[in-house]
Amino acid sequence: MLTDLPLEELRAYRPHVPEPEDFDDFWSTTLAEARAAGGRATSVPADTPVTAVRVEDVTFPGFGGEPVRAWFLAPPSDQPLPCVVELIGYGGGRGLPHERLGYAASGFAHLVMDTRGQASTWGSGGGTPDPHGSGPAHPGMMTRGICSPHTYYYRRLITDAVRAVDHALGRDDVDRSRVAVAGTSQGGGLALAAGALHEDVAAVVADVPFLCHFERAVRVTDAAPYSEITSYLSVHRGAAEQVFRTLSYVDGVTMARRVTAPTMVSVALMDATCPPSTVFAAANALPTPPTLEVYPFNDHEGGAQEQWLRAVAWLGRVLA
Amino acid sequence: MLTDLPLEELRAYRPHVPEPEDFDDFWSTTLAEARAAGGRATSVPADTPVTAVRVEDVTFPGFGGEPVRAWFLAPPSDQPLPCVVELIGYGGGRGLPHERLGYAASGFAHLVMDTRGQASTWGSGGGTPDPHGSGPAHPGMMTRGICSPHTYYYRRLITDAVRAVDHALGRDDVDRSRVAVAGTSQGGGLALAAGALHEDVAAVVADVPFLCHFERAVRVTDAAPYSEITSYLSVHRGAAEQVFRTLSYVDGVTMARRVTAPTMVSVALMDATCPPSTVFAAANALPTPPTLEVYPFNDHEGGAQEQWLRAVAWLGRVLA
Amino acid sequence: MLTDLPLEELRAYRPHVPEPEDFDDFWSTTLAEARAAGGRATSVPADTPVTAVRVEDVTFPGFGGEPVRAWFLAPPSDQPLPCVVELIGYGGGRGLPHERLGYAASGFAHLVMDTRGQASTWGSGGGTPDPHGSGPAHPGMMTRGICSPHTYYYRRLITDAVRAVDHALGRDDVDRSRVAVAGTSQGGGLALAAGALHEDVAAVVADVPFLCHFERAVRVTDAAPYSEITSYLSVHRGAAEQVFRTLSYVDGVTMARRVTAPTMVSVALMDATCPPSTVFAAANALPTPPTLEVYPFNDHEGGAQEQWLRAVAWLGRVLA
Amino acid sequence: MLTDLPLEELRAYRPHVPEPEDFDDFWSTTLAEARAAGGRATSVPADTPVTAVRVEDVTFPGFGGEPVRAWFLAPPSDQPLPCVVELIGYGGGRGLPHERLGYAASGFAHLVMDTRGQASTWGSGGGTPDPHGSGPAHPGMMTRGICSPHTYYYRRLITDAVRAVDHALGRDDVDRSRVAVAGTSQGGGLALAAGALHEDVAAVVADVPFLCHFERAVRVTDAAPYSEITSYLSVHRGAAEQVFRTLSYVDGVTMARRVTAPTMVSVALMDATCPPSTVFAAANALPTPPTLEVYPFNDHEGGAQEQWLRAVAWLGRVLA
Amino acid sequence: MLTDLPLEELRAYRPHVPEPEDFDDFWSTTLAEARAAGGRATSVPADTPVTAVRVEDVTFPGFGGEPVRAWFLAPPSDQPLPCVVELIGYGGGRGLPHERLGYAASGFAHLVMDTRGQASTWGSGGGTPDPHGSGPAHPGMMTRGICSPHTYYYRRLITDAVRAVDHALGRDDVDRSRVAVAGTSQGGGLALAAGALHEDVAAVVADVPFLCHFERAVRVTDAAPYSEITSYLSVHRGAAEQVFRTLSYVDGVTMARRVTAPTMVSVALMDATCPPSTVFAAANALPTPPTLEVYPFNDHEGGAQEQWLRAVAWLGRVLA
Amino acid sequence: MLTDLPLEELRAYRPHVPEPEDFDDFWSTTLAEARAAGGRATSVPADTPVTAVRVEDVTFPGFGGEPVRAWFLAPPSDQPLPCVVELIGYGGGRGLPHERLGYAASGFAHLVMDTRGQASTWGSGGGTPDPHGSGPAHPGMMTRGICSPHTYYYRRLITDAVRAVDHALGRDDVDRSRVAVAGTSQGGGLALAAGALHEDVAAVVADVPFLCHFERAVRVTDAAPYSEITSYLSVHRGAAEQVFRTLSYVDGVTMARRVTAPTMVSVALMDATCPPSTVFAAANALPTPPTLEVYPFNDHEGGAQEQWLRAVAWLGRVLA
Repeated sequence: MLTDLPLEELRAYRPHVPEPEDFDDFWSTTLAEARAAGGRATSVPADTPVTAVRVEDVTFPGFGGEPVRAWFLAPPSDQPLPCVVELIGYGGGRGLPHERLGYAASGFAHLVMDTRGQASTWGSGGGTPDPHGSGPAHPGMMTRGICSPHTYYYRRLITDAVRAVDHALGRDDVDRSRVAVAGTSQGGGLALAAGALHEDVAAVVADVPFLCHFERAVRVTDAAPYSEITSYLSVHRGAAEQVFRTLSYVDGVTMARRVTAPTMVSVALMDATCPPSTVFAAANALPTPPTLEVYPFNDHEGGAQEQWLRAVAWLGRVLA
Repeated sequence: MLTDLPLEELRAYRPHVPEPEDFDDFWSTTLAEARAAGGRATSVPADTPVTAVRVEDVTFPGFGGEPVRAWFLAPPSDQPLPCVVELIGYGGGRGLPHERLGYAASGFAHLVMDTRGQASTWGSGGGTPDPHGSGPAHPGMMTRGICSPHTYYYRRLITDAVRAVDHALGRDDVDRSRVAVAGTSQGGGLALAAGALHEDVAAVVADVPFLCHFERAVRVTDAAPYSEITSYLSVHRGAAEQVFRTLSYVDGVTMARRVTAPTMVSVALMDATCPPSTVFAAANALPTPPTLEVYPFNDHEGGAQEQWLRAVAWLGRVLA
Repeated sequence: MLTDLPLEELRAYRPHVPEPEDFDDFWSTTLAEARAAGGRATSVPADTPVTAVRVEDVTFPGFGGEPVRAWFLAPPSDQPLPCVVELIGYGGGRGLPHERLGYAASGFAHLVMDTRGQASTWGSGGGTPDPHGSGPAHPGMMTRGICSPHTYYYRRLITDAVRAVDHALGRDDVDRSRVAVAGTSQGGGLALAAGALHEDVAAVVADVPFLCHFERAVRVTDAAPYSEITSYLSVHRGAAEQVFRTLSYVDGVTMARRVTAPTMVSVALMDATCPPSTVFAAANALPTPPTLEVYPFNDHEGGAQEQWLRAVAWLGRVLA
Repeated sequence: MLTDLPLEELRAYRPHVPEPEDFDDFWSTTLAEARAAGGRATSVPADTPVTAVRVEDVTFPGFGGEPVRAWFLAPPSDQPLPCVVELIGYGGGRGLPHERLGYAASGFAHLVMDTRGQASTWGSGGGTPDPHGSGPAHPGMMTRGICSPHTYYYRRLITDAVRAVDHALGRDDVDRSRVAVAGTSQGGGLALAAGALHEDVAAVVADVPFLCHFERAVRVTDAAPYSEITSYLSVHRGAAEQVFRTLSYVDGVTMARRVTAPTMVSVALMDATCPPSTVFAAANALPTPPTLEVYPFNDHEGGAQEQWLRAVAWLGRVLA
Repeated sequence: MLTDLPLEELRAYRPHVPEPEDFDDFWSTTLAEARAAGGRATSVPADTPVTAVRVEDVTFPGFGGEPVRAWFLAPPSDQPLPCVVELIGYGGGRGLPHERLGYAASGFAHLVMDTRGQASTWGSGGGTPDPHGSGPAHPGMMTRGICSPHTYYYRRLITDAVRAVDHALGRDDVDRSRVAVAGTSQGGGLALAAGALHEDVAAVVADVPFLCHFERAVRVTDAAPYSEITSYLSVHRGAAEQVFRTLSYVDGVTMARRVTAPTMVSVALMDATCPPSTVFAAANALPTPPTLEVYPFNDHEGGAQEQWLRAVAWLGRVLA
Repeated sequence: MLTDLPLEELRAYRPHVPEPEDFDDFWSTTLAEARAAGGRATSVPADTPVTAVRVEDVTFPGFGGEPVRAWFLAPPSDQPLPCVVELIGYGGGRGLPHERLGYAASGFAHLVMDTRGQASTWGSGGGTPDPHGSGPAHPGMMTRGICSPHTYYYRRLITDAVRAVDHALGRDDVDRSRVAVAGTSQGGGLALAAGALHEDVAAVVADVPFLCHFERAVRVTDAAPYSEITSYLSVHRGAAEQVFRTLSYVDGVTMARRVTAPTMVSVALMDATCPPSTVFAAANALPTPPTLEVYPFNDHEGGAQEQWLRAVAWLGRVLA
């Protein structure tokens, strides 16, 4: 059943989502530090039976120069290819390379970024540690380091995503004018963030994006992972102001305001995990209206493989 | 947690699963009728962005000559390829061709058979009707036509699977000495059945197979889809004898006794859907001990993509 | 708790429910074909210990002339009796004759129609097959044949209900000027349909009727059986338009507009299965305001036996 | 799925269930006091549309002479009839008279006893108060007055059941040599008790009886109502000895040892509410082996209406 | 997630909650009778290892003079102390004295009243019987005796609470000008009632109070214990008018109108058990606006120990 | 209901739990490093309304010398007191000082250790960070750093517990010959560990201890937090050997073998979180049989406050 406002109200939903004054400074400093931290990307042939496309096992420097794993897949080509940098949903990691052959089999280079410290709840795992401790936290990633934007987990993960774009841009086999970011759920939130924070992103695909409009999200759903924040606040009763201040540095609505590349957003009207109003809050904040795909009868799985078809077709046009 | 017997008992578990006297006649007649029913396979290029492998949208004649949809994927090759005929889990269908690129990207031809009348519970759908009515039935496929082996749904679906093998064998681009069947859950049960009923199957991969040892299954799990049978029997209190007689014609244990090709079976010890004892009952009934992969901490997802890697490697060796 | 709008809004709820232009043609053709299909009703004494009322085991021709089972119960009488044709809720069948003695023990003839293809989820079963296949469908009856109104399951079941009225009207022991239709949930939806499509129905009782205002129902409840439609649409993402077009041929709101007989409708304000707004949409569409019984604190059980008392008293007056 | 031991072990299950030394004294004193307490039965025509059988609204004196409501139904007859005294399941009451027409429509007189203080959880209610307070108790009836057999709720309810038999025996329209007791779940436990404590009971039908072998029941199921006892003991950690001593005065196993009339017991092997071992413990304690009906695939609904058919047929033979 | 109206609407929420004309007479008569019933308080040293504060095991006369248990705790003091009379949440009792040392350790005398007939669902129990029977009732206390305000359970429990205040006022070691009442959930509802009905109460603390605005509560939550009333009404379909009339004598909104002492109310915006609108209905009915503590991210646990700190600080000021 | 073996089998349950050869070296090195890491304990008066006992807000050096918060409570005394070092259950922290007054009010000094990185799931929070990152991990603490005993979270937390004992021993207001450790669930597991690893512990109280016999625990329960390990292993399918090797360094069974102080263990037979066999495995491994308290009808709450009473009495005797 519908989990949020009617579609007509969603289309007009433009809530006030305040942003911190130093938002841009915060991120430009964070990214500058990450880029200055050094670290070198390495790439070796992946251990996989796949032969139809080339698969590399990549390690690139992310937040603080810390190593982040990724798969790079590409079809045989004698010229640089358009590239999709893919970010993964909450709890998952880069998995195994044969799981995500679609982009490369369709003519794109494809960089699948692992998710630091996650990759242990579903799927086929991953191998990127998050070498940072935290204060008292609820199980999960949502409240790790949440007392300050500087220590917050998503500062690191978003930086990784931006640095993944850097890696793609620096590859000889990638056409740097045609690098897109894409992802579902957490991956969609990261795609908006990377699109906002990296000026060379040429297209953004955010499917049922997470990490948007936290102040509303925690009030209209009790599903994980937004509920991690609610649970944390139910114990740390005086922490709400600081928590929401921290979250304001990673909120997808504020990110969306800064995205200049063409963007596709998909949303599911029966989504109990990422309530559609939070997705529309981000979609409606984009400076240029996105290509919007609405799935009226889907929960958080959204458009799934059918949406992937629409995204591939759209990317083909946008990155042509 | 463990859902069944300890592993050491499972390894020795060989229950008495009676088979009807006319089992082999039943199936030889059924298959002969299907093959005699005519119908021609057709194949057109699939509507997909995938270019790295060839994708065909196939329709082949199944039970009663009725049209069954499939995808055929293959890498570029100038000689016939080994081929994996894949059967799908309960509720799913052939989906979209870009979802299952692994085999073709690894050098195999790959025929993905749609599931008649299903394909509407998860995944990306399918397009094969089941043009047969039934008597009173519980929602789902498990009790459709269950009053007789002749009208039972799985008679039709198993025949489709055998006929899918026929289709693969008849293709010029397939090496007919190297056709394997594979599947997960319902697909695993169908793989055992096709391996039993088709003498030209060269290898069988049955992951966490469903449709095995029904008499025990309905007593040790209350999870769907086995529970459809229990629910039916809870209403039709006098029907148990006939129901189990019908099921004896499709039981994976009885099928396993007839499989002569090399077989890989995977099983998950925390599987609440297909209890491991029912899987071992089939595995231990194989004339030749199978290659057995045990996943001690998985529920019905079993080995998933990691098991796929093991299966591909094993198929590479067996079909070499 | 309340599952829908406040009562005052429900009383005024008259949504726009569009109907297909050929709605009346569709049904007149369907019914004419069924009546032309032949088939003869048979009746034998039922196997039951009941002696206080007469019980017959009836088979009458339904959709396509196909045999439909029923019980006919009547108290001893030397003249034709008023008759209640009862339709059964989703998943149930005609059960056993001693289960439904109330009408006959209170002076009515009573025809209890079996439900084709159902009768296996609760209760004491039934014996009417549905000899029609379908395309890909979600477990349950809601999406069988849903790609076209011609193949849709409810076309057949509604026709059965109309033909059950025909059967009652044709009996010597029934007063053909006093034949009512009644039912609960699915049975209530069928009662509205039979009342709309059969001009000789003298009274309609629809308790917590199902099959009303589908477009809203699937959006405001996630309970089965409406959820079968939602699940189907979540997989078949492009099918919504056709699905709702098919449903528009069986929607209880459109049926209600055509009911001319006196009607009693009961509704439960905490009904999570058939949300009260969908029931009011039908009740408020009746050309003549119905006798309305509101149960403020009941879920889908509604008024149950207490409602039966009110219905019997009302039928006694209306059919006097 | 199976909720207890395999059937072959159940058939042989004869646990040690100790009984208090003064068990018989306790009950003979209790019943003598109840019979001495006076109170007169009254009977008025019931307010019901039913005409095919006679329905009386009865009040008879139960425990302590306190008024207990009942329905008396009987078909027209010019001689005394065999009579079934029916006791009701937990949470229910006598309901409405038209709900239980089967016995009377099949030639039996039928006394439906209300359940003091219950009748408010399901069904159509009832009207018998339980004018006794209690010490600290868990919600529900299972622990009211449980600190002593003298104050325990079931002392009163069992006495009511015995006094209901007294009432039936005293009626002119009942053949006092042919009075049976019957019931399902709690009603089955009460039937065993009445059969044990009243020497004039001619037959006992106990369907999926509750109130049997408490010491095991609370350890093998966590379903209500046995769980009320567990919950009470989880708070009152030192009370177990006294609680089980009180329960030993009402345990159906101990009752069963004293039943001399022919008895039918039904049991469901997937019963999670009244685990089958507790039912077999009682059935196997009967001095004469009962007619046993086993439903292998049913939960606590057991044989339901199909079992009713078997019971009616059996009663017809036993009371012939 | 939020379980009710937005905060701004809650702050203005002042529903029409009708009160019976004889409300004040009812209670003045009830209390006068209780006080006239006699009974003497007794107090013995408690059996506890606690030595830092004095603990007495108290029995005082409550409704009808019936004995009610309590703990009295106080720090060493040579002069009368301010005293908090604490009432307990639904299902609990006075527990063990060492569980509630906070008030006494912080300088207050503390009387912890047991809950008659409850104390068996959670916690460490209690020892106060409720020696009153009832008519048909749903499991739990909410519908015991609900057919009349005179027989209703909460008439007795509220009277106990008022008499607990009497007991505190009569103690030499308590400063009778500084007696507060406090409680959480059911205890909060009782605190409002005692504050309304006892003129010598000097302060009231009602945390997430239960027993407020029943007419709305049963419609907006399906959580126990409000749901006991709904369940009762779902069976006793004609009883609603009388039930709500009975409840109107104990409704916390009507009580609140009569509270003249300073009051602190706490409320949780994600409270699914006591919906915040029902709490605000009471808070906004107080003649003097209360000190209001809002916990935006808590379910029914509300402010818990953090709220206790605020309450202690507030009581320190109010009772200074 | 029972969640594990029958009591008689539990009493004899002594499974083979292998321990690593370097177990003692691992811990002596770890503790030596922690003690060598420096850091100074600080203590300031706590911000609390409590006056009857002294409350200090303590910070002491734990693993790696990192600051760990604690409360120290003590009754007024002019001589050193026996002291209970309390460890907290999973997800909780030291909370607020007024929550745990029992020990100090009963004559003991009491040190309540905060739980690093937890304290955000229930209760009133805490303030101790865990400044260590980890590899891919499941939400929660159970798999943080699980790839090596050196990086495993519980290496740090157990060290904190040992260092808390060090802190207690070093206080002037504590009698260093009478320092006990106590805790429930995770706290019970930590108590066993501290009792094993610190020779000056004078008594151990382990209530329903967690962290015992992991190899069995993950197979017989699917409840959190043991299930975190299962979930991790279901994704990281090849990691089981290493995971169980890491866990063998913190297993409470191996710890128990090394506990020389008198020990009290409590266990609940209906405990679904810490299955009783895992508790008995530890209890039966103690060199000296413990004082064992069995709660037959409790889930993981175990004996709760009643067990506390038994523990206090026992500690009073043991530390006399």
